Amino acid sequence: MSDAPKTDPTPIPANASDNPAPFAFELKKTDGRARRGAIRTPHGTVQTPAFMPVGTQATVKAMFMGHVEATGAEVVLGNTYHLMLRPTAERVNRLGGLHKFMNWNKTILTDSGGFQVMSLAQLRKLDEEGVRFQSHIDGQKYHLTPERSVEIQGLLGSDIQMQLDECIKLPASREEVQRAMELSLRWAARSRQQFETMGGPAKGQALYGIVQGGDVGDLRIRSAEELGKLPFEGYSVGGLAVGEPQEVMLEMLDITLPAMPEDKPRYLMGVGTPDDLLESVKRGIDQFDCVMPTRAGRHGLAYTRYGKVNLKNARHQDDHRPLDEASDCEATHHYSRAYLHHLVRTGEGLAAMLLTWNNIHYYQTLMREMREAIEAGRFDDFYQETKENWARGDIAAL
Amino acid sequence: MSDAPKTDPTPIPANASDNPAPFAFELKKTDGRARRGAIRTPHGTVQTPAFMPVGTQATVKAMFMGHVEATGAEVVLGNTYHLMLRPTAERVNRLGGLHKFMNWNKTILTDSGGFQVMSLAQLRKLDEEGVRFQSHIDGQKYHLTPERSVEIQGLLGSDIQMQLDECIKLPASREEVQRAMELSLRWAARSRQQFETMGGPAKGQALYGIVQGGDVGDLRIRSAEELGKLPFEGYSVGGLAVGEPQEVMLEMLDITLPAMPEDKPRYLMGVGTPDDLLESVKRGIDQFDCVMPTRAGRHGLAYTRYGKVNLKNARHQDDHRPLDEASDCEATHHYSRAYLHHLVRTGEGLAAMLLTWNNIHYYQTLMREMREAIEAGRFDDFYQETKENWARGDIAAL
Ligand SMILES: [Zn+2]
Ligand SMILES: [Zn+2]
Repeated sequence: MSDAPKTDPTPIPANASDNPAPFAFELKKTDGRARRGAIRTPHGTVQTPAFMPVGTQATVKAMFMGHVEATGAEVVLGNTYHLMLRPTAERVNRLGGLHKFMNWNKTILTDSGGFQVMSLAQLRKLDEEGVRFQSHIDGQKYHLTPERSVEIQGLLGSDIQMQLDECIKLPASREEVQRAMELSLRWAARSRQQFETMGGPAKGQALYGIVQGGDVGDLRIRSAEELGKLPFEGYSVGGLAVGEPQEVMLEMLDITLPAMPEDKPRYLMGVGTPDDLLESVKRGIDQFDCVMPTRAGRHGLAYTRYGKVNLKNARHQDDHRPLDEASDCEATHHYSRAYLHHLVRTGEGLAAMLLTWNNIHYYQTLMREMREAIEAGRFDDFYQETKENWARGDIAAL
Repeated sequence: MSDAPKTDPTPIPANASDNPAPFAFELKKTDGRARRGAIRTPHGTVQTPAFMPVGTQATVKAMFMGHVEATGAEVVLGNTYHLMLRPTAERVNRLGGLHKFMNWNKTILTDSGGFQVMSLAQLRKLDEEGVRFQSHIDGQKYHLTPERSVEIQGLLGSDIQMQLDECIKLPASREEVQRAMELSLRWAARSRQQFETMGGPAKGQALYGIVQGGDVGDLRIRSAEELGKLPFEGYSVGGLAVGEPQEVMLEMLDITLPAMPEDKPRYLMGVGTPDDLLESVKRGIDQFDCVMPTRAGRHGLAYTRYGKVNLKNARHQDDHRPLDEASDCEATHHYSRAYLHHLVRTGEGLAAMLLTWNNIHYYQTLMREMREAIEAGRFDDFYQETKENWARGDIAAL
């Protein structure tokens, strides 16, 4: 390694331990049940409620990280399942950690890998110890346990880590929901033990416990209460947005959130549409992640303050107007809808680049406006105005 | 159209006629046969020798145009064949011209469409009048004549336009080469007539004639001499890099260039590798275009001062070093080879984004360094040094 560059071209510390300020959450203000807060991690402050763009394979698809930062994002999510397969956690660690690897100096949250194992991996076998599976890429065998998941996340150097849990699809029987919830509680304790053994708290990192219990209210409450007895830095609500109607999800939040510690951040996993975010912030959620804005951007769909716009539609082919003339997104204000339509129709990569950027920008704008509304004590008004804008829909065709 | 934005968000004039400074070429300095010059168009000055990134479908694939500009590019190429199919020249014109459409305020050169018709279109039928074909996308029928090609390029509003010619594959018989060359000469005269009818010169636009003649020296010379009698603003060398060895191409340049007007820009179409550029500038070429840097970028290949690097190769998987530690390309100096390798292996869009940027940056750097070497009267030294760097090859694996 003698011809390595003398100076690191980026100012990113090799791993979180370079900056040992403890993880902290401050609840600054509430407006109804909506919460305005801030999370401090070794990689900066995350204003909440916050939306976390998904950077599955150490990249937010079709985005430069500098542009992700420019949208206002202060935290991105990395997927443990994908990263443990390629390039592997050990390799990322040798290369200085995930922050340096992907050139992102702000906060990173990683999931436990469990959700993707259940949706992507082959020949899964789950027991008390953990889950055995084969890679969907090359069939290689893995054994993911609560301890190994925390170990991987520690190797990646993520600031906020998740316990391994079992997330089941809905609908499911009460017995099945209860079994998975109870297993997840036992895994929570093992995860916490491993996290402390690895010195996570001293590095300023956080481990969140995950509330399970499907669509069964009393199981959700028991899960939340039991997890609350463990010293997690934050708590996630898992196992929602897995096929149930939005009203079931919101009902579960109404039941679950009062049973969760008030002084810890609350993260609703894998959610959601702009409307899901608005409804969930209203109920007291602080953090979100979802592939929706990035995936939609790769399929010609743009989120705007007036709802979703399908740029594949021929109505845009002669439309010289920008996607949203009031948007300050650098990605879209220089381009006509006709141009975006052309890029989508011809399958050009720039379509995904511009629309993903626009969508992340819209999501971040929505979060910022919600934060401002809570601060100003006018969340209910903001909620109404936002719903009205979405209901108005896109500008009329030319 | 009443709800159109009141102000254009970009400072781009709707079409070239907003700025009627005449097209001009200044030959500033020569060093051996290498030429240092400048082209003035309605959209700025192009320092020559110049490489023009290819923007086939009104986008340089996987690039933001702001980043194309940041590499030093002062002109990009648009493909008439692709644009006439989608979104159509008439539509681009209604939307304010190609510059505005694709958000590029510098010079645009368009080809005539003939080359792509011959390589992509279906059921081609060529006669004296022009070429009939069907779209490779939807089978729609088109008739491209010299007049229609100039008309399309005028609708697009490109600054530098090309005559329709017939470009044949090599090897070919002398008779076939001569027939195509003579047809191209007759089409040159018709193209010029149409260009003047449409007022191109008064708009500051240029039309280039195209020298044909395959690999037959005396036909090349006759083509160049005959074209020189027509008042083209510049001259292209076409029909090379179509399958012949590099030495044949360079021999043809040696024969052809002395027969071409000295006071007009000389554009070698569809060329080439960095070595092709170096050899051709040495012989007196002023302009180039090629898909190589952009296409290579989408296939995991990076051009550097020490030759081509295949980032798919496993030798990079643990390499923490940047692609080229001395490069000032914003695209690559923040990333390790290991990260670039990971992106290529996982098929992430960011791989194409970063490597295309790197490659365009390298091509522009090579052109700038050639311009500086000619100015300093040290082109031969630069030629030697550059060949030595390429021969040295990539840094040793870790
Ligand atoms: Zn701007
Ligand atoms: Zn930089």
